[in-house]
Amino acid sequence: MSAIDGLVQEFGRLPGVGRKTAQRLTYYLLKGPPEDARRLAEAIRRVVEEVKACSECGNLSSEDPCGFCRNGRRDATEICVVEEASDIAAIEGSGRFRGLYHVLGGHLSPLDGVGPEELNMASLMRRLEKGVRELIIATNPSVEGEATAAYIHRMASGLPELRVTRLARGLPVGGDLEYADGVTIAEAFSGRREM
Amino acid sequence: MSAIDGLVQEFGRLPGVGRKTAQRLTYYLLKGPPEDARRLAEAIRRVVEEVKACSECGNLSSEDPCGFCRNGRRDATEICVVEEASDIAAIEGSGRFRGLYHVLGGHLSPLDGVGPEELNMASLMRRLEKGVRELIIATNPSVEGEATAAYIHRMASGLPELRVTRLARGLPVGGDLEYADGVTIAEAFSGRREM
Repeated sequence: MSAIDGLVQEFGRLPGVGRKTAQRLTYYLLKGPPEDARRLAEAIRRVVEEVKACSECGNLSSEDPCGFCRNGRRDATEICVVEEASDIAAIEGSGRFRGLYHVLGGHLSPLDGVGPEELNMASLMRRLEKGVRELIIATNPSVEGEATAAYIHRMASGLPELRVTRLARGLPVGGDLEYADGVTIAEAFSGRREM
Repeated sequence: MSAIDGLVQEFGRLPGVGRKTAQRLTYYLLKGPPEDARRLAEAIRRVVEEVKACSECGNLSSEDPCGFCRNGRRDATEICVVEEASDIAAIEGSGRFRGLYHVLGGHLSPLDGVGPEELNMASLMRRLEKGVRELIIATNPSVEGEATAAYIHRMASGLPELRVTRLARGLPVGGDLEYADGVTIAEAFSGRREM
């Protein structure tokens, strides 16, 4: 296979990248300065070599323990559990949470053969037993995310001192009521608050 | 900068890839087998090292002259001129052309400082003087593409033996008349053919 076809094929394996986009990306790199393409290749290599799962929380990081787990100024009594490491950036973007994270590495999905053993559940339980006061479950608001949240809730119910919470469902800020789906509106009703 | 942020930044430089997509691609590579990411990095490096512009036609290829220029079964009396090497794949996909190509490397755009000297115009003229019978101008059906086509047409008018043609404008096959723009419909009218 030619070098061009080879790169088109590799780009085409990425999620959301079809054949046309893969071609466009390939020719974009070919038209630009070779340094740009080399920098991209080097960044990919570096990420593969350096980044590992944090042995404490499962976050992906170049350091172990990761920056959150090493940071003495984060509140170790609060743990926010997420499905993927990429969810952490979104939560950090909110500026609302100063505790530690726990990355499950997915959600429960029996049909795909993903049970509790395939996720970082045991390590979560071990952490919860060490004086954690609140566990905030931030799995996705999807069927699988809810099932995973319910499983974690049950699992943690043996710890009487632990408060287990779930991120609120409701209308997205800046969204339009007219375009919200019925389930979201129903959730917004049941979660309504005094003004 | 961390390895993850570095790759997000590099992906984000690609056309049509915003920050969210760059993050998604980065975490996709991190979740998958490291070999997949290494293959992508290697394919990028290979394309940068191997692929050069064909000294004959300007096509991007690992070989010089490129596969088209070396292929004795292609009709050397017909040259199809395109803006970018990536346009060749689209034309080959039509299965309708068996001649050779010439890649301009862009279109005339005086405001961006792209004049005839910045494009592969001189080499096109040299090739046209060697017994070419038809020049098919396949620059884009855009303002700049039309201006570039008009320039090439003028430039080639000194070669009386040469037939200069332009790809037809009209309704895209499978398209919907209702959604076609007025200019395209006008072109389809002036280019209408006997049934």
